Amino acid sequence: MDKIIGIDIGGTKIAIGRADINGNLEDSVRFPTNVSRGYKVIVREIIEKTAKLINGHSIKAIGIGCGGPLDSKRGRILSPPNLPGWDNVPLVEDIRSVFNVPVYLENDANAAALGEFHFGAGKEVSNMVYMTLSTGIGGGIILNNRLIHGVRDSGGEVGHQTILPDGPLCNCGNRGCLEALSSGTGIAKIFREKLASGRKSIVTEWVKDPEEISAKVIADAAKMGDPLAIEVWDSAIYYLGIGIANIVTIVSPEMVVLGGSLIKYGETLFVRIREIVKERARLVPTEEIKIVPARLGDDVGVLGAVAVGLLGDER
Amino acid sequence: MDKIIGIDIGGTKIAIGRADINGNLEDSVRFPTNVSRGYKVIVREIIEKTAKLINGHSIKAIGIGCGGPLDSKRGRILSPPNLPGWDNVPLVEDIRSVFNVPVYLENDANAAALGEFHFGAGKEVSNMVYMTLSTGIGGGIILNNRLIHGVRDSGGEVGHQTILPDGPLCNCGNRGCLEALSSGTGIAKIFREKLASGRKSIVTEWVKDPEEISAKVIADAAKMGDPLAIEVWDSAIYYLGIGIANIVTIVSPEMVVLGGSLIKYGETLFVRIREIVKERARLVPTEEIKIVPARLGDDVGVLGAVAVGLLGDER
Repeated sequence: MDKIIGIDIGGTKIAIGRADINGNLEDSVRFPTNVSRGYKVIVREIIEKTAKLINGHSIKAIGIGCGGPLDSKRGRILSPPNLPGWDNVPLVEDIRSVFNVPVYLENDANAAALGEFHFGAGKEVSNMVYMTLSTGIGGGIILNNRLIHGVRDSGGEVGHQTILPDGPLCNCGNRGCLEALSSGTGIAKIFREKLASGRKSIVTEWVKDPEEISAKVIADAAKMGDPLAIEVWDSAIYYLGIGIANIVTIVSPEMVVLGGSLIKYGETLFVRIREIVKERARLVPTEEIKIVPARLGDDVGVLGAVAVGLLGDER
Repeated sequence: MDKIIGIDIGGTKIAIGRADINGNLEDSVRFPTNVSRGYKVIVREIIEKTAKLINGHSIKAIGIGCGGPLDSKRGRILSPPNLPGWDNVPLVEDIRSVFNVPVYLENDANAAALGEFHFGAGKEVSNMVYMTLSTGIGGGIILNNRLIHGVRDSGGEVGHQTILPDGPLCNCGNRGCLEALSSGTGIAKIFREKLASGRKSIVTEWVKDPEEISAKVIADAAKMGDPLAIEVWDSAIYYLGIGIANIVTIVSPEMVVLGGSLIKYGETLFVRIREIVKERARLVPTEEIKIVPARLGDDVGVLGAVAVGLLGDER
C-alpha cells in the first residue's frame, strides 16, 4: 500500500516521517535545523533524509508543515521570522522535482489541525477548531471538512483576537490579544510585571533571573498555593475561556481540540474552560460542543504534515 | 425559465416574492404577521399569497428565511421569541405538501447572508461574512462557498462574541457582547444610563421619554456636535471595529458585508471600521479584505429566502 511522507520544519528542529494512510508512523527521523546554514543546505539534508525514509517504498504524496507566512498554493515560504533567509523560496518545487510525487505545503498550525482532524481527536467530526497553547497561541479551523485557509493563508489566527481592548501589548503590535494574555510567553510576562511592581511569590526562591520564569514554573507554584501564581494562572485561563467562547460563538464547531505544552499544566483546565464557554457562548448549545485535549502528542507535527500530503487538494 | 419563491417571515411582517434565478424580483407581496393569530392561520395566509405569486409560473424551489431557533435540516421552527406558539412546527413540510416542490429553510440572518453572497455584494467571492447591524447584531458566514450552519444552526452569532469581559449585560445573559455595546438597542441603553448618571445632551430636548431615545436620534445629535452623543457613538463604532477585527482574524474572509439600519447613520462608519480592523487584525493582510455595505437594501429578506431556495442543498 502507498505511503505518505510528512516533513515538519521548525526553527530549531526538523522531523520527517513515513506513515501509512491511517497515520501509523512506520519510521521517522529528527535533526536540528541549524538555520544559520541557510536554505539550500537545509533543503539538501531534508531531501537526503527523505530519500532514506522512502527507501524503495511506493510514495503517494509528500506533505510539509512549516512556520508561516507562506503561500500554500504556490508552495513558497515567505520570510518566516524563525527561518531567516527563506525569502520567497520554492520549497515545494525543490522537493517535488527530486521525488516526482505530489508535494503539498501548509503552515504548521494548519497542518497540526489537519493531523488531529484526520488521525486524532477530530476523526469523527466535520467541523473542528484546533488550538495550540504554547509559547504562542496558534490554530487551524476546519469547517465542512475543509481547512479555512483565509486570505493569503492567514486564516485561523485564533491567538490574535482582541480579548481585552486596553490589555497588554502583544508581539503582533495589537493590545489585549489572547496570545498576550494566555500564552506561555504572555503569562510569564504578566507574572514578571507583577513581581516588578512589588508582589511576592515563592517563584523568586526557585528562579533567580526573572527572565527565566516560565509558565510551567508559575503553574507549579499555583499548585502549591502561591497566591500570585494562582491569580496570574486563573486570569490566563479566564481569558483563554473567553477566547474559546468567542470562536464557538462565531463558527459553532462540533469540537475544539486543545494541544501544546500548556494543556499539561492545569489539571482542572478543561473543566474551567467548559464552564467559561457555557457562561459566555449562550446562543450556542455548548453542551453539544466537545472541548478535548489533542491526541497526537509529540507526533502532531509529522502526522500533521502526513495529513497535508494525504488530503492534498481535498484539504 | 423556472422561478424561485422566497418567503421572509418576521415577527411583525411577512414578505413573499417571486424571482428569476438571477435574483430579479418579478412580483412580491407584504403583509402583517399578526402573531396573535397563531401558526395555522398565518401559514394559511402564506400559502394563499404564495399560490397567487406562482400563478401558473413553473417553480423550481421555495426558500424560507425565518427567525430562529430552528432546525434547518428537519425544516422545523423551534419556539422563536418573536413568533410565540411556533413550537416545533413543521413549516417546511406544511408548505412543501401544498406546492410539491423542494422547500428549504434557513434562519433570517443566514438567509440574508446567502442573499448578499449570491445576488449582492459578495457575488464575486467564495468567503464572506455578513453582519446585520440593527436593534440587534446578527450574521452569517460563508466559507469555501458553503454556509457555516454550526451545531444546531447556531453558527454565525457574531453579535455575541465577548468584546469587553466586564462590559454591560447583554440580552443573552453574557456580559460585554458586541450586541450589548454596538447594536441600536445597546447604544440607546448606554446613552440612557449616561443621562441617568447626570450627563447632559441635546437629545433630551428632542425626546422627552428616555425610553424613546433611539440610535438614530443619538447619531443625529452626534452629527450636530453633541459631546455625549459623539462619545457614545464613537465608542459603539470602536467596539464594532474590534468585533469585526476578531472575525477577520479568526476566519480571514475575502469580504465583510455590513447591512442593517445602523450603517445608514454614520457617514464615516466604514472608514473608521477599516482603520480599527487594520490596527487590530495585524496578522491578516487587511488591505486585501473588503469591508463593504450590503447591496440588497430592503429586499434582502426576500432575496435571501430566494437564495436559500435556489441554492438548496448546495448552500
